[in-house]
Amino acid sequence: MTSPAPDNVLGDWHETVLRVRYSETDKMGIVYYANYLIWFEIGRTEYCRARGLSYRDMETNDDTFLVVAESYCRYKAPAYYDDEILIRTRITELRKRSLRFGYEILRVRDSQIISEGETGHVVTDGDGRVRSFPEGYAQRLLAPPIHKPQGEPVPTQISPE
Amino acid sequence: MTSPAPDNVLGDWHETVLRVRYSETDKMGIVYYANYLIWFEIGRTEYCRARGLSYRDMETNDDTFLVVAESYCRYKAPAYYDDEILIRTRITELRKRSLRFGYEILRVRDSQIISEGETGHVVTDGDGRVRSFPEGYAQRLLAPPIHKPQGEPVPTQISPE
Amino acid sequence: MTSPAPDNVLGDWHETVLRVRYSETDKMGIVYYANYLIWFEIGRTEYCRARGLSYRDMETNDDTFLVVAESYCRYKAPAYYDDEILIRTRITELRKRSLRFGYEILRVRDSQIISEGETGHVVTDGDGRVRSFPEGYAQRLLAPPIHKPQGEPVPTQISPE
Amino acid sequence: MTSPAPDNVLGDWHETVLRVRYSETDKMGIVYYANYLIWFEIGRTEYCRARGLSYRDMETNDDTFLVVAESYCRYKAPAYYDDEILIRTRITELRKRSLRFGYEILRVRDSQIISEGETGHVVTDGDGRVRSFPEGYAQRLLAPPIHKPQGEPVPTQISPE
Repeated sequence: MTSPAPDNVLGDWHETVLRVRYSETDKMGIVYYANYLIWFEIGRTEYCRARGLSYRDMETNDDTFLVVAESYCRYKAPAYYDDEILIRTRITELRKRSLRFGYEILRVRDSQIISEGETGHVVTDGDGRVRSFPEGYAQRLLAPPIHKPQGEPVPTQISPE
Repeated sequence: MTSPAPDNVLGDWHETVLRVRYSETDKMGIVYYANYLIWFEIGRTEYCRARGLSYRDMETNDDTFLVVAESYCRYKAPAYYDDEILIRTRITELRKRSLRFGYEILRVRDSQIISEGETGHVVTDGDGRVRSFPEGYAQRLLAPPIHKPQGEPVPTQISPE
Repeated sequence: MTSPAPDNVLGDWHETVLRVRYSETDKMGIVYYANYLIWFEIGRTEYCRARGLSYRDMETNDDTFLVVAESYCRYKAPAYYDDEILIRTRITELRKRSLRFGYEILRVRDSQIISEGETGHVVTDGDGRVRSFPEGYAQRLLAPPIHKPQGEPVPTQISPE
Repeated sequence: MTSPAPDNVLGDWHETVLRVRYSETDKMGIVYYANYLIWFEIGRTEYCRARGLSYRDMETNDDTFLVVAESYCRYKAPAYYDDEILIRTRITELRKRSLRFGYEILRVRDSQIISEGETGHVVTDGDGRVRSFPEGYAQRLLAPPIHKPQGEPVPTQISPE
């Protein structure tokens, strides 16, 4: 699952799958370009969860917000309604008061990379003041994922009997 | 999974789980009210898929569109970022050229029903002309779900090794 | 501007114009159905502003939130990218701790009503507890619009010289 | 309105004003980061319209699509619900089969630049094949805006009498 890490890559790739929603398409028949940034956010959330860090608790309990300072996305091929999409997420830079995530978006059916991106974040408190990561965050963010996650994986479909 | 069907209920409930996205919240800290209609659409799509009907193929191969004619939603309790949400979907009326879906939205952690809704649809072709359902659709829409779905269920998280 | 008021109509129609965004369309080439609820919200905001009530200040200064309890929309004809859209908004019911808005959505070019809807709201404080409207709100909400609004109207296009 | 053009700037800045929607905010109380890309799209549309080019007609009549190949956004300060926002748009590069737009997003009340960005586009036909701009497009895209636009400016509020 994890590819050999290039020099600038700190964390392992985390992989999350979702399905394209009708609402995410536009009149061109493909996914509207702003929605990739929403998928990046899902990638970040799941990257953290896999390391035992709930981004919700980060905000609520630890007064730690990852405010977006920069976003970049390259669009290489379109995504269509109902496509299964794989979001690959990793940390590409980690400092005391900032971090960067890198992303690859693939179509599951043909493993084609349809988009690549990056976001830069500043660590702030709830009032928007820059702060350092709480104790222990850096280690957990860079640690390999926890093999048995506490939270259940979320299927998008439950087969009724 | 399926509850005893009330008289006006034709199909079984179908259940789909998703997780609230950061982008779906608003400044009140809860899910913005228009997003429930997006969740209803996901419920419809998965209801059909569980019966072997891909809504994408319905449009592309069978020139059959379920244009929304009406939507109704009652909001009973808020949903929060990162909540796991259960969408329950069933058909409440099925005619030659129209159908209605009913929905219940629950929070997974406490099984509370946070919203209920309904949508009414007219069957059209790609040019917006009203048409009848293609042969065999009605039976499939009202049939119980297929136990071994052809498509894989979509997890939202894959644990890397 | 105001049509003869039916019995259940309390306030005058307020009219707001906007233009359909590319992001609001879907693969069917028309405006996605959830977006009408966003337009309703714009209608409410501008209805209040025209009566000297900023909904932002209502929340921030008066701890008064209009939580949505119900939404209904009937879709009669599609809206397309770049269409100019007229949102007509009025209050259809006003009580101590709740109110209802009614809406009509028209295409400007042919004055066709493409959608009609209604939303029901409960008045709460910032913690979600039901409360009464602050002193004076009811009168202002039902008053005719102020003829010279304090805030400038917002053009969507400024011609540079 | 137009600032002295740096060397890499081809067209004049075009300015469009909009107001932040409730739906555009997130639980942090500020505009969600993906929505800036929607504002960029509005900037592009209005930049073209001011030069007599309807992007809708471009697609429908001239089979010319500006597919997004890249997006970049730097977020410098937050935007809040109901803020008036100024979108400044210009062309930063124009080639036979591609172009780039640059953007600045300002808060109207204090003229602060809250975001800057850029998008790169490839010219395609409706089937996604790369093509050249139709005859005359380049000249019109780089021309100064037409002083009396054929289309009416779109106010977001009409004061009823």
